[in-house]
Amino acid sequence: MDRLTIVKVGGKVVEDPQLLNTLLDHFTSITGYKILVHGGGPLATQLADRLGVETRMVEGRRITDEETLEIATMVYAGLVNKRIVAGLQARNTNALGLTGADLDLIRARKRPVVDIDYGFVGDVEDVNTRELRLLLGENVIPVVAPLTHDGQGLLLNTNADTIASRLGIELSHYFKVLLFYCFEKRGVLANPEDESSVLSELSKSEFAQLKNSGIISSGMIPKLTNGFDAMQNGVSEVLITNPDNFFRGRGTRLRRD
Amino acid sequence: MDRLTIVKVGGKVVEDPQLLNTLLDHFTSITGYKILVHGGGPLATQLADRLGVETRMVEGRRITDEETLEIATMVYAGLVNKRIVAGLQARNTNALGLTGADLDLIRARKRPVVDIDYGFVGDVEDVNTRELRLLLGENVIPVVAPLTHDGQGLLLNTNADTIASRLGIELSHYFKVLLFYCFEKRGVLANPEDESSVLSELSKSEFAQLKNSGIISSGMIPKLTNGFDAMQNGVSEVLITNPDNFFRGRGTRLRRD
Repeated sequence: MDRLTIVKVGGKVVEDPQLLNTLLDHFTSITGYKILVHGGGPLATQLADRLGVETRMVEGRRITDEETLEIATMVYAGLVNKRIVAGLQARNTNALGLTGADLDLIRARKRPVVDIDYGFVGDVEDVNTRELRLLLGENVIPVVAPLTHDGQGLLLNTNADTIASRLGIELSHYFKVLLFYCFEKRGVLANPEDESSVLSELSKSEFAQLKNSGIISSGMIPKLTNGFDAMQNGVSEVLITNPDNFFRGRGTRLRRD
Repeated sequence: MDRLTIVKVGGKVVEDPQLLNTLLDHFTSITGYKILVHGGGPLATQLADRLGVETRMVEGRRITDEETLEIATMVYAGLVNKRIVAGLQARNTNALGLTGADLDLIRARKRPVVDIDYGFVGDVEDVNTRELRLLLGENVIPVVAPLTHDGQGLLLNTNADTIASRLGIELSHYFKVLLFYCFEKRGVLANPEDESSVLSELSKSEFAQLKNSGIISSGMIPKLTNGFDAMQNGVSEVLITNPDNFFRGRGTRLRRD
């Protein structure tokens, strides 16, 4: 099978032009098929603050009322997505910005209210791998913003880590998928105060321990939960890493066992 | 040659959910190849107001400083574009939202400063008809936001009327192009106070007269200038119309002579 590299780039990298440029330089150098999935949370929070809209998070996930959904759509599909697309085009990479609504790429269902009402948040139901494979076959580089749709005209906010994981899982039927979660730290830290304490590997049970002991921060939980989900459902390799190291394969590697 | 219908939908239609729904219903019923180009100026002005950013217009064209470019990117490529894409997908139309940066579709040059410094405004230099024809051939409906790029990583604000006209001109080598400028009025009015005074036809010299006598408003000038440009460069038909009438071919038809 051909190799497909999916790079998910997180909020703090997206808002720092220098880190983003480093990432795009290295992303451009990756050979073979590739997809970039981005977040943009911190920039959405900034815009919400300027507009006087309150930001509420639960375990690293954003509560999305109607106004927050508009902000997310503007920041993710507009500002961040097009900045990345223009940056890749400047590097002669034929990028195409997408949300789940474009080409009916990712259908989701508005999350049912159980304990928490997340608002306009979508749980992925269906990934249109046919359209993605057509694009990849044309040497197009999809740049995916973390928005999905319900097929009834409603856009939904979906965690970018989840989108990266689900794309990886669905496309693992057609490609050998490498999934890189790329953020501002060099990997998962054994000691959050010590940037050099990067774990070279992490198993699911070790993750559970770190989570219970409060060592892993809330923003990290979706990355790892989705990363282990990907590992257990067809993705060949999951690496938690930063813009300087991901293309070298350095960072925290998730273990299947 | 196959027929291609390009519908440009203006700001006030975009911000009114009911008008937009009417437009999308009728757009969906158009047979053959089609492209939707949208504006979003009034929504950009609203966001600028909320953020305390001053809006400056000259002859219906927006002066675009760095902050205004960010607002334009958020509103055009984000909010408006994805609202339309999700709305078309709900109507089983396989829409794909695009800016000029996506797929390197429209390259532009930052407008040189002569009398006025328009800021980050792009004059179209090159339209990538190959990618557009590939998409149309796959039954994809391009939904184009009024942003271009310079190929060096810079996004540029480009008038949506101009984009619609330029797409029409470039694609007229491959299709019989019908271009509909769709806004909140039924056409060009002989008397701006009388909504029923729609001109059924308009020639370029009549346009010049109406412009000189101040009867045509500033927002109308880019539509008509670009419409006549399209008529003189290969486009078969240009109609100025509204969401209720465009699909019936009613409105003000531009004359080539």
